[in-house]
Amino acid sequence: MKIICKKADLQKSVNIVMKAVSSKTTMPILGCILIHATADEIKFTANDMELGIETKTEGVIQEKGMVALDAKLFSEIIRKLPDNDVLITSDSNNNTQIVCEKAKFTIMGQTGEDFPFLPFVEKDYQITLSQFTLKEVIRQTIFSIAINDSNKMMTGELFDINDGELKVVSLDGHRISIRKIELKSSYPAKKVIVPGKTLNEISKILTGGVDDNVDIYFTDNHILFEFEDTVVVSRLIEGNYFRVEQMLTNDYETKVTINKREFLDCIDRATLMVKEGDKRPIILNINDDVLELKISSQIGSMDEMIDIHLEGKNIKIGFNPKLLIDALRVIDDEMIDIYYMNPKAPCFIRDEAQTYIYLILPVNFVDND
Amino acid sequence: MKIICKKADLQKSVNIVMKAVSSKTTMPILGCILIHATADEIKFTANDMELGIETKTEGVIQEKGMVALDAKLFSEIIRKLPDNDVLITSDSNNNTQIVCEKAKFTIMGQTGEDFPFLPFVEKDYQITLSQFTLKEVIRQTIFSIAINDSNKMMTGELFDINDGELKVVSLDGHRISIRKIELKSSYPAKKVIVPGKTLNEISKILTGGVDDNVDIYFTDNHILFEFEDTVVVSRLIEGNYFRVEQMLTNDYETKVTINKREFLDCIDRATLMVKEGDKRPIILNINDDVLELKISSQIGSMDEMIDIHLEGKNIKIGFNPKLLIDALRVIDDEMIDIYYMNPKAPCFIRDEAQTYIYLILPVNFVDND
Repeated sequence: MKIICKKADLQKSVNIVMKAVSSKTTMPILGCILIHATADEIKFTANDMELGIETKTEGVIQEKGMVALDAKLFSEIIRKLPDNDVLITSDSNNNTQIVCEKAKFTIMGQTGEDFPFLPFVEKDYQITLSQFTLKEVIRQTIFSIAINDSNKMMTGELFDINDGELKVVSLDGHRISIRKIELKSSYPAKKVIVPGKTLNEISKILTGGVDDNVDIYFTDNHILFEFEDTVVVSRLIEGNYFRVEQMLTNDYETKVTINKREFLDCIDRATLMVKEGDKRPIILNINDDVLELKISSQIGSMDEMIDIHLEGKNIKIGFNPKLLIDALRVIDDEMIDIYYMNPKAPCFIRDEAQTYIYLILPVNFVDND
Repeated sequence: MKIICKKADLQKSVNIVMKAVSSKTTMPILGCILIHATADEIKFTANDMELGIETKTEGVIQEKGMVALDAKLFSEIIRKLPDNDVLITSDSNNNTQIVCEKAKFTIMGQTGEDFPFLPFVEKDYQITLSQFTLKEVIRQTIFSIAINDSNKMMTGELFDINDGELKVVSLDGHRISIRKIELKSSYPAKKVIVPGKTLNEISKILTGGVDDNVDIYFTDNHILFEFEDTVVVSRLIEGNYFRVEQMLTNDYETKVTINKREFLDCIDRATLMVKEGDKRPIILNINDDVLELKISSQIGSMDEMIDIHLEGKNIKIGFNPKLLIDALRVIDDEMIDIYYMNPKAPCFIRDEAQTYIYLILPVNFVDND
C-alpha cells in the first residue's frame, strides 16, 4: 500500500474512527485502525465489535492495499507531524513507513486480513435528521441512562418512531427523560434500543450543523448512521423496552412556574452542603408564591427563597439534587412548569406541548419543622 | 464580625490566598482562610507554615472581628453566589452566615485566635522587579528543580543578587538552568535559596504585567513578595547552594546553530517511540551541515534530518529527550546555539550574552552504525 494524504485530512479521519477503537481488549487487532486503499478510495475503519466506524479520506492512491496500525501510536504520530503531505507505505510484511517532510517513522503494522469488517446493514428502513437535532436529543436524554448494566436495557435509549414523530426515552429507575421530535416525513412504526455508548460517541463526531443531515438506517439488530464521509454501525440492545407511557400522568395537585436559571443556580449552591456520597435530599417548601429551598448537614445549612407562580395546593417535597440539576441543565426554556401530585409521587417537568417530559422520583425526608 | 463585599472582590481574594492553604494537614486550622476585619481594612490570610499569603479586600466593615473558615468550602460558596453584594457575619461562637440576595448559608467557623499569623519580616533588603520578569524567570528555570527532596537544596532555586544583576539557578543532577536579569539599580551581594513550591505558587498569583512591579524583601530566613494588595511570605531553604560556576565552561569542540522550533518539534515526534519509563536516548548525529536525529525501540523507529550551521567537529551524542524538550520550550529565540565538547561531556545551550545557560548531561548509547 502506498498513499499520500494531507496531514489535516489524516488527522480528521483518525479522530473520527478513534471513537470506535477498543481501549481494553485482549485482541490487539481491535486496538488498531485499518487503512484500506482500493482503486478509488482510502478508507479508515475501527471496530470494537459493538460499535464500528468507517470514514473516507482524501488522498492519492499510488498502490492499493491495506494495513492495520496501532490506533494510539498512529494517531499520535499523525498529530505530531508537520502540516504537510504525508506518505504512508506498507510492505507485504506490514512494515509501515510514515514520511512527512524530513521526518520518517517506521512501525510494525498487522495484516488487514485479520481486521473485523463492519457488519453489513440492509438499508431498507431509513429516517433523516439534522445533525443538530440528533446531537441535541442525545444531550437532552443521555444523562439518565443507567451506568452499570445490571439491567442492560437501561444502558440504552429507546428510539421510538411513529408516524411523523421520533420519541427518545432513557431511564435509570429514579427518573425518566423523554424528548419528542417532529420528523420531516412520515415513517412506519419502529422501536429500537440504542446503546448509550454508541450515542455518546456519535454525538462527539457529529459537527452538529443545522443544515447537515444524518441518515439513520435500522434493522432488527443494527443501527447505521451515515453522514458526510462517515458511516457508524452499532449493535442494538435486544428486548422490549419498559412501558413508559403507563408511568406518566397529566394529573397534578400543584403546578409551579419558575425561572429555570434561578432554580438551577439555587440547587447548585445547595449541593455545597452535601458531602460526596451523602444522599441528603434538598427540601422544597412550596408555599403560595414562594419556593423555599432548604438543606442542612454536618457541613452547615443553606436556605433560599425563589419567587414562583403557583397553581393548586402548597406542598413540601424532597429530592436528590443531582437528578433535578441534570434535567434542568438540558432544558433551554427560560421559564419552566413543574407538576407535583404529593410528596411520595414523582414530579414532572414538561412543556405545554410535551416535547420534553422529565419525570423525577422524590425522596423521603425527616420534617423537622 | 460583619462585613459587606462584592462577590467578585471576594472571589479574587480567595483565589489568591488559596495558594497557601495546606491541602494535607493534621491541623484543621491550616486548611482555613482567616478573615480579619479591623477598623480600616479587611484582610484574608492563609498559611501552611512554609508559605503564607495575605491580601486586602475592598468592602464595608460594619463590625470588627475575625473568623477562620474552611478554605475549600468558603471558596466554593463564594464561587457559586450570584454576582452581587455579600454579607458575611460571624458571632462570638464563630457561627458564620453568608448572605447574598435570597441565598443564605450558615457554616461553623473556627476562632481566628488559633490562626498562625504570618512571620514578621524585616524590610531591610529590597529589590524591585516587574511582575512580567519575575513570572518569566520562574517559568524559564522552575522545570529543572528536583521533585523529591532527598537533597532539599535541589528543590529550590538560587536567587543570587550581585551588583546590578539577579541570577536565578536551578539544577537536579542531570541539568542546570541559569537565567540572568539586569536590575534597575545596584544592590549589595545576596544569595538565598527559595523553595520551588513558593515560586510555583507566586507565579500563579502574579498578573504578569510589564508595568506592574513586585517588591521582594530578603532576610536570612524569609523572602517576602509585595505587590498590589498582596503579601507573600515564604521560608528560605538553609545552606550554601552548589558552586555552579565551576561546572560551566566556554570551551567547545562543536557549535551548532539550529532553528529552535524545528529541533523541538523533531524531538517531540521522536518521543513517540519511547514508552513511559523507558530511558531510551535520542541520538544526534551532527555531520557537516545536517543534524540527523535517530531513535529506535520495540515500538518502531524514527529518524529526521535538520539543516544546521556547524562550527567545529562532527559529533554523535545521545540525550534524554525530555531534558532537551524542557529547555527548548522556555527559550524564546528563533535560532539557538548549542555547544558540545565530546559525547561524554555536557552540552550548553546559551545565547551570546549568556543571559541564559542550559547545561544538559548526555547519556551513553550503543552505537549500532
